[in-house]
Amino acid sequence: MTNSSLDPTDAHPQGHLARIAATIAAIGPLDESAMAAADARQAQLTKPAGSMGRLESLGRQLAGIAGSCPPPLPTPSAVVVCAGDHGVHAQGVSPWPQEVTVQMVANVTAGGAVVNALARQVGAEVVCVDIGVAAELLPVPAADGVRLWEHRVADGTQDLATTAALTRDQAAAAVVVGIEVAGRLADEGYRLLATGDLGIGNTTASAALVAAYTGTDPGEVTGPGAGSDAAMLAHKIEVIRTALRRAGLDPTDPLGTLAELGGLEHAALAGLILGAAARRVPVVLDGVIAASAALAATRLAPGAAAYLIGGHRSTEPGASRALADLGLQPLLELDFRLGEGAGAVLAMPIVQAAARLLREVATFDSAGVSERQE
Amino acid sequence: MTNSSLDPTDAHPQGHLARIAATIAAIGPLDESAMAAADARQAQLTKPAGSMGRLESLGRQLAGIAGSCPPPLPTPSAVVVCAGDHGVHAQGVSPWPQEVTVQMVANVTAGGAVVNALARQVGAEVVCVDIGVAAELLPVPAADGVRLWEHRVADGTQDLATTAALTRDQAAAAVVVGIEVAGRLADEGYRLLATGDLGIGNTTASAALVAAYTGTDPGEVTGPGAGSDAAMLAHKIEVIRTALRRAGLDPTDPLGTLAELGGLEHAALAGLILGAAARRVPVVLDGVIAASAALAATRLAPGAAAYLIGGHRSTEPGASRALADLGLQPLLELDFRLGEGAGAVLAMPIVQAAARLLREVATFDSAGVSERQE
Repeated sequence: MTNSSLDPTDAHPQGHLARIAATIAAIGPLDESAMAAADARQAQLTKPAGSMGRLESLGRQLAGIAGSCPPPLPTPSAVVVCAGDHGVHAQGVSPWPQEVTVQMVANVTAGGAVVNALARQVGAEVVCVDIGVAAELLPVPAADGVRLWEHRVADGTQDLATTAALTRDQAAAAVVVGIEVAGRLADEGYRLLATGDLGIGNTTASAALVAAYTGTDPGEVTGPGAGSDAAMLAHKIEVIRTALRRAGLDPTDPLGTLAELGGLEHAALAGLILGAAARRVPVVLDGVIAASAALAATRLAPGAAAYLIGGHRSTEPGASRALADLGLQPLLELDFRLGEGAGAVLAMPIVQAAARLLREVATFDSAGVSERQE
Repeated sequence: MTNSSLDPTDAHPQGHLARIAATIAAIGPLDESAMAAADARQAQLTKPAGSMGRLESLGRQLAGIAGSCPPPLPTPSAVVVCAGDHGVHAQGVSPWPQEVTVQMVANVTAGGAVVNALARQVGAEVVCVDIGVAAELLPVPAADGVRLWEHRVADGTQDLATTAALTRDQAAAAVVVGIEVAGRLADEGYRLLATGDLGIGNTTASAALVAAYTGTDPGEVTGPGAGSDAAMLAHKIEVIRTALRRAGLDPTDPLGTLAELGGLEHAALAGLILGAAARRVPVVLDGVIAASAALAATRLAPGAAAYLIGGHRSTEPGASRALADLGLQPLLELDFRLGEGAGAVLAMPIVQAAARLLREVATFDSAGVSERQE
């Protein structure tokens, strides 16, 4: 790290807001000339024009982000798994006990979770961030390729059904942690990030955020998460309706919405997106937690959307609503409903492949291949 | 190679048919107990039951193929790019000159084609097989990770609009080449194969095969391939209708259909599928050429279908018709219409990830994670 403190919770709240504002101000547009060069280069490569479909538009985006064509190979890569607990768990919105959050932090640290197996497959590092777990972390040595960063802002959120989940200061502090994590990883040389999350109850907060940011009825954007039955799902929807009535949200205040309804992991992931965009590092989104965090990020900074890549379409309905709002079509659709970053991690080789096409495929001229006859 | 000759074209035709029959006889069913063990293990892993969606059914299939749970990691992997030319090119069914086939064989050999870039991304080897190119191969040194195998059965096919594309003996010889290639790669230790193809005009042969094997009108299964315009597409459909009328096919004779309409690369890929299934090696299918070859293989040996994995849904309509017939839902849908094996290669990490879940993810017991409360 060269330019940032990783102790954002020690800073003054006003410092958090200033840091967020400075990060937003640093987010630039994609480079139009690099994107035009990518389009021109695609037409010269030894393949029918347009025949690589979505890899061609992805390559264009990577060129625009990097500001060069061909873009550099977006590697090394890391998935940032932000973990937090949720006061709304007390409302009975999940069949899983809250202690699973801290247990899964230990499992990820030890390398035994799904995200670890997928990260090994694609050659990604795993950075697990305790942004707000409600229990003492378990003493577990970190596996190869895994780091655990402790930046807890609070011991979980408050119950969004009855009060604001976070204070405005807590939300801002968690956003700043995300910004700092992105900056540190960019400083270390990472060129592709994926969002991950752990937090029993976090699909409830995600659905609430999607409903609030998109103005959609909670009945349309709330799903069963990690296994609610029909009765629990109906209850979950009522809890979110209650929260939205209680909060009386101001659509011009995205940070306020994040504080009222969000989890600490949502705030940290929103910050990760802002921080990565400011450093021109692309971010692959996972499921509904990531997509709702991306809504928060892009309400704060619309320009951040250009740095996002949809990784996987979660089966949670709120994910599709949020992705549509973000203008993203995810690369994978494999019926995952896990979180952890699983879908985003598995999409990383596709993102890297898009850069490889522009970097490595021969042109008609260089390979001596005849062009089509018109 | 331990148990096969790679000179099938020197053998007697009857030898080819006997070799095909012996291969078909060696294709066994998937191992039911390994698949049941995979289902049971999925329920013990630290994730909500069913939350990894299609990776769970894929893991089940890999366990059934390997006959063990967890299944071995399906690596190393190779894509087999079968190259051939097509007499029907004379009918004006492609905007590309026929010489592009031999030029692209050189491009793949030199490592400059799309399939090479994607294979480097996923760590797969490339084996390019000249099964029936109509021109002398260009003298090109092979790049790292690429091999060129020369097993030409004929200098391209005849024009399927006016005569049988292949003699029955040629079709059988090309199937045997595919069987031998699969056997050789299995002997070398490859545990995952992908289908690839090169051949100007081969989407016409593919559409004809899909129409014939599935009894579908050519108008429903013929697409623009590598860039036909509307007039050329309409002509392509008429050429296929003419061929089907000419051929007077016998639905009980799949090899006869393959000879009447197929390319040499279709026959070789059908053989590759049969040979891989006989050796219990899973095969990832690419686009419409692969899917039509898979119809030939499964008409010859219905049990081979269990060893197939859909890699990518080509934009060619015949691909979707064939995949539906095969009962396959492809892993990727990225609007590729290239061939070469591009879509299949990019799906390989997903297949390997499915095995990793069963092999590497901790169980609730081993990780000390609480289970859901019912």
